[in-house]
Amino acid sequence: MGEFELIRRFFLPLGERQESGSLMLGPGDDCAIQRIPAGRDLVFSVDALVEGVHFPRNYRPDYLGWRALAVAASDLAAMGADPECFTLALTLPAVDEQWLEDFSAGLRRASEAFGLQLAGGDTTSGPLTLSLQVHGTVEQGGGVRRSGARAGDLIAVSGTLGNAGAALDYLSEPAPSADILAVLEHYHRPWPRLDLAGEVRRYASAAIDISDGLLADLGHILAASRVGARIASDRVPLSAALSRLKGSKALNYALRSGDDYELCVCFAPESWESAPESLKSQLTVIGAVTAEPGLYLDGVDCGLEAVPAGYDHFRGKS
Amino acid sequence: MGEFELIRRFFLPLGERQESGSLMLGPGDDCAIQRIPAGRDLVFSVDALVEGVHFPRNYRPDYLGWRALAVAASDLAAMGADPECFTLALTLPAVDEQWLEDFSAGLRRASEAFGLQLAGGDTTSGPLTLSLQVHGTVEQGGGVRRSGARAGDLIAVSGTLGNAGAALDYLSEPAPSADILAVLEHYHRPWPRLDLAGEVRRYASAAIDISDGLLADLGHILAASRVGARIASDRVPLSAALSRLKGSKALNYALRSGDDYELCVCFAPESWESAPESLKSQLTVIGAVTAEPGLYLDGVDCGLEAVPAGYDHFRGKS
Repeated sequence: MGEFELIRRFFLPLGERQESGSLMLGPGDDCAIQRIPAGRDLVFSVDALVEGVHFPRNYRPDYLGWRALAVAASDLAAMGADPECFTLALTLPAVDEQWLEDFSAGLRRASEAFGLQLAGGDTTSGPLTLSLQVHGTVEQGGGVRRSGARAGDLIAVSGTLGNAGAALDYLSEPAPSADILAVLEHYHRPWPRLDLAGEVRRYASAAIDISDGLLADLGHILAASRVGARIASDRVPLSAALSRLKGSKALNYALRSGDDYELCVCFAPESWESAPESLKSQLTVIGAVTAEPGLYLDGVDCGLEAVPAGYDHFRGKS
Repeated sequence: MGEFELIRRFFLPLGERQESGSLMLGPGDDCAIQRIPAGRDLVFSVDALVEGVHFPRNYRPDYLGWRALAVAASDLAAMGADPECFTLALTLPAVDEQWLEDFSAGLRRASEAFGLQLAGGDTTSGPLTLSLQVHGTVEQGGGVRRSGARAGDLIAVSGTLGNAGAALDYLSEPAPSADILAVLEHYHRPWPRLDLAGEVRRYASAAIDISDGLLADLGHILAASRVGARIASDRVPLSAALSRLKGSKALNYALRSGDDYELCVCFAPESWESAPESLKSQLTVIGAVTAEPGLYLDGVDCGLEAVPAGYDHFRGKS
């Protein structure tokens, strides 16, 4: 099977499947064309995933298809954007039809779940790497940035943290327990918090998705906003499965491991007060923004320099 | 140097350098934000480049930076779009500061030459691959597609063809002649025909950029438009350097090798008549579109199935 047949068979259906008011021309021409509704801005982000770096070698292709789009879509959620479409640049060592069928099936499920239509792509031979760019929209002047946190803001996170990081310890588990299956699900099938994007956009002062670890990603907000923060370790939400599996080490996973794709969000106190229960019930307040710089955990200065920086792709896990 | 420092030092300057009416938020947040002017549509295309597949191993990084953006920008020219910005997903085996400085210098020169500002990206470790997505705009309902060719249209190409393909024979030439230097320049420093985009949009019925070879790319227009074509080999424009270097084989390079990033454009006869000299002088008419399918070269049916298909990345050069 050649490049064109491969694209036609496995990927064009993801571009044709959905009705979209936004995509005027999908895959198959020199470019795709998207119409941004009047009064809205385009929001976009690109993520590269490399075999052996961002996902294990010989990773299940249906998981990979889902995960790749979830990881990219998570950046849209962090900006409070509504999802529209995506592009895929896929480099493959060889044409393996079964692999492609499974990969495109996982990608299609994610595409449907997240409301992201395939707009275009490029498929070529080479080491297994993927690059996905997601497109969304926000009203003009909208978009929740990292730089909007102010002293006195509350800091909250969605869901529970550390599950996907712990899952890495069990990827080869031959007979996984229910708790192990629970954390593995977070790794294999992350759900970007697009469900929160609309309300985050309305109420938040700053937001980021937790891809590199809570401390590292909160650190990005603090650096961009030129503020500091105090957080309380006993407020950091942990799943029962993670707590049972890792005991006293569970917190460390929640603070330092990424891959959960939950959100870390800052709110001015009055915005938090006025936010609806539908948003608050999905979030846990873990601390507050301070005028003085530095990130304090239980009153101890983590020292952003000294804080393990989460995942740095040129340093490896710190 | 870690990932964040690397991005800050080598790539953020490409996002900050230019004034753009379109880019509202550049690199450094979860997403970039672009405002599409009222009455215009977003036009975008992604291209993946892999070391050893799309460019030679140990290729000069300044050439690579230029070439990568030129290849991507060429798709904007083929749609008749005005360039705006781009994203870069870069996977690197290691952080080599000299390499990065040279690469980003070449990328910056191309960025300035083509009017494409860096909007965002992702940098990670892995085999050397690049994925660039370019963004442009056209007036709503505009955008020259592959599917618009009609029987009776004239077929024209820009520039001269086959130079970059011939250059591949001389990449390691120790003492290149003037002719060899001339064709090498086409390979190392391709110029996407963004200079023609505005007039192509106004006058053309269909267009494609010649990345895979004239026969292959014209074939894409014919397939999308459900028409055929007759072209004359003695009309195909060849550079003097290519003719001297390759003699009777020069035509074969012009027909079958890609990498020149010139345009193949179809025009209704009355549109061609009314087109300005500034456009016509850049183009050479090589044939005409026919109602009956098939691609005839000098009256001989190439048979699109039998025609060497140009570059297919899963089959290699045919």
